[in-house]
Amino acid sequence: MKEFWSSRIRALTPYTPGEQPKDRKFIKLNTNENPYPPSPKAVAAIQAAAGESLRLYPDPEGTELVKALAHQYGVAENQVFVGNGSDEVLAFAFQAFFDPGSTIVFPDITYSFYPVYANLFDIRCRTIPLNEDFTVPVEPFFNAGDGVVIANPNAPTGIELDQDSLRAILERNPDVVVIVDEAYVDFGGTSALPLIEEYPNLLVVQTASKSRALAGLRVGFAFGNANLIAAMNCVKNSINSYTLDRLAIIGAAAAVEDRAYFDVQRQKVIDTRTWSTDRLRALGFTVLPSKSNFIFVSHPVVSAKDLFAGLREEGILVRYFALPRIDNFLRITIGTDTEMKALVDAMKKLTCHA
Amino acid sequence: MKEFWSSRIRALTPYTPGEQPKDRKFIKLNTNENPYPPSPKAVAAIQAAAGESLRLYPDPEGTELVKALAHQYGVAENQVFVGNGSDEVLAFAFQAFFDPGSTIVFPDITYSFYPVYANLFDIRCRTIPLNEDFTVPVEPFFNAGDGVVIANPNAPTGIELDQDSLRAILERNPDVVVIVDEAYVDFGGTSALPLIEEYPNLLVVQTASKSRALAGLRVGFAFGNANLIAAMNCVKNSINSYTLDRLAIIGAAAAVEDRAYFDVQRQKVIDTRTWSTDRLRALGFTVLPSKSNFIFVSHPVVSAKDLFAGLREEGILVRYFALPRIDNFLRITIGTDTEMKALVDAMKKLTCHA
Repeated sequence: MKEFWSSRIRALTPYTPGEQPKDRKFIKLNTNENPYPPSPKAVAAIQAAAGESLRLYPDPEGTELVKALAHQYGVAENQVFVGNGSDEVLAFAFQAFFDPGSTIVFPDITYSFYPVYANLFDIRCRTIPLNEDFTVPVEPFFNAGDGVVIANPNAPTGIELDQDSLRAILERNPDVVVIVDEAYVDFGGTSALPLIEEYPNLLVVQTASKSRALAGLRVGFAFGNANLIAAMNCVKNSINSYTLDRLAIIGAAAAVEDRAYFDVQRQKVIDTRTWSTDRLRALGFTVLPSKSNFIFVSHPVVSAKDLFAGLREEGILVRYFALPRIDNFLRITIGTDTEMKALVDAMKKLTCHA
Repeated sequence: MKEFWSSRIRALTPYTPGEQPKDRKFIKLNTNENPYPPSPKAVAAIQAAAGESLRLYPDPEGTELVKALAHQYGVAENQVFVGNGSDEVLAFAFQAFFDPGSTIVFPDITYSFYPVYANLFDIRCRTIPLNEDFTVPVEPFFNAGDGVVIANPNAPTGIELDQDSLRAILERNPDVVVIVDEAYVDFGGTSALPLIEEYPNLLVVQTASKSRALAGLRVGFAFGNANLIAAMNCVKNSINSYTLDRLAIIGAAAAVEDRAYFDVQRQKVIDTRTWSTDRLRALGFTVLPSKSNFIFVSHPVVSAKDLFAGLREEGILVRYFALPRIDNFLRITIGTDTEMKALVDAMKKLTCHA
């Protein structure tokens, strides 16, 4: 029964996030969380702020976080937008820059939330097939529609598009906004952030959920020309003046300012990714070259679906997408060394008789 | 310059929240915050949760908070929706229940965010003038459009619409959703919550920002038929799977379960409201009968605009709306006894020569 449902949602298929087991008994390599805790400075800032002042509304501009980001990334405060996770930031961007009835383009294999936003906001989608090797083709994105969305590194492949290619796409789309979703960029990727000075049509979206280990705090951000950021704020202030609570603002600001911790932690993830990739390849797996905190893997004999079920029985959760072209791949988040050793051991067991 | 701005936001005028002074030197009676701290149990729960687990995504369903609300309000879990403040809950409801191009009705004087949502989501508005005494007229809402939104108690008047009238409006709008926004209901008002069993078209929206003193945590909720709640979740999961962070879920759940603290605190606000109303009336003010944590006042001689400026000079922030019919009123949040004594003293000084 969908009585009373508006026309915009009757035919909608919402995004399905990865499973969040409530008993915590699994080795959780399914939602690209950071295996290490957030900066102790972030935790301390939250502890200090969790008190009487919670009775007061937060700063609607999240100034403390905006200042921290502007400081760490060397941009002006009016080039920074902050929101409730990068999903909310993306949803605002779709509303800010893409007209109802217009057509946006993105790869056929990418973050599956993009078509969900588009459907809700009455935007049409045109998908560009990734190349055979799952890299993003460049020319098909030239003047291809009324907006472009590129996850870089891409999800769930983990593969990065180089900056020259991105620059070419920006130059061949001068009249429409190009959103570069850099949720995973801090694990060895190159950010397009410096390009915002040059391209007024570039919006770079990032998150505190992955590299800052704050998925539970819900903080995302965007960088762009002041004009684009003003549009984002116009949407936000027409929906919810205060999407970031006091603890999220102060905690994320402390995490962003703790550069030393950030650099150590992300290098640990990169090192474990290298180790895991080598071990899985030695077991015969295809592992796509990743610049993210996950790897996308396939086995020549045992199906991804069977491996997914087998790993679950071994107490390890990974992500399986029953979608064309990638239904024989698993997306595996990089955990701690111990967790990845357990994963490799389980994979060995599940494929040794194959 | 609005280059790259989508058509939906070019002509938009976002909502303007009340001033949030950063130096905290003012007596702040302008944003309807609770003058008392949140439940110590809420603070303790947040302190306990602010640690390593912030690296993990929150429960997308906010189950712990949903359970607490279902338990305290005696409803089923599938009759409860939770979101990032009641502003977000309202924005989701507008998208869930009102079609683009359809017309919704609400009073001419009410929460000024309703027309902002409508404009963003391409919904038309028809406003019903309040009666001379600022009460909500009932018959004009019968079969008046494709949806109804009523703030009860109303803002910024603080006046309550009785349950019989609300029932009549629900009965005469059987095919469209009636949203009752009860942000202020806990300060002596009567909730329409028991009516959700009877009326499948009723959505009751509430917030933890006022009576639970958690404006800084951003938690709102809605109660309704399971079908309406499913529609709300469909919208939420198409925008942001996790709008509530871990600390908001756990903190609000603890606050909701701390019924004893809640009852003591809201009675304090009600008592101070009675005291303040009496004192201001003794000074010659018109004070509308309020069931909320604010009062709406007017002076027969000194203009609201002048009083607003005069109070600011005395270090007291209140809210002034330069809008037709109410531009000679001030909305004054109920503060502590000490704060309200300062307000009354300042009002005496500002009106004594009038």
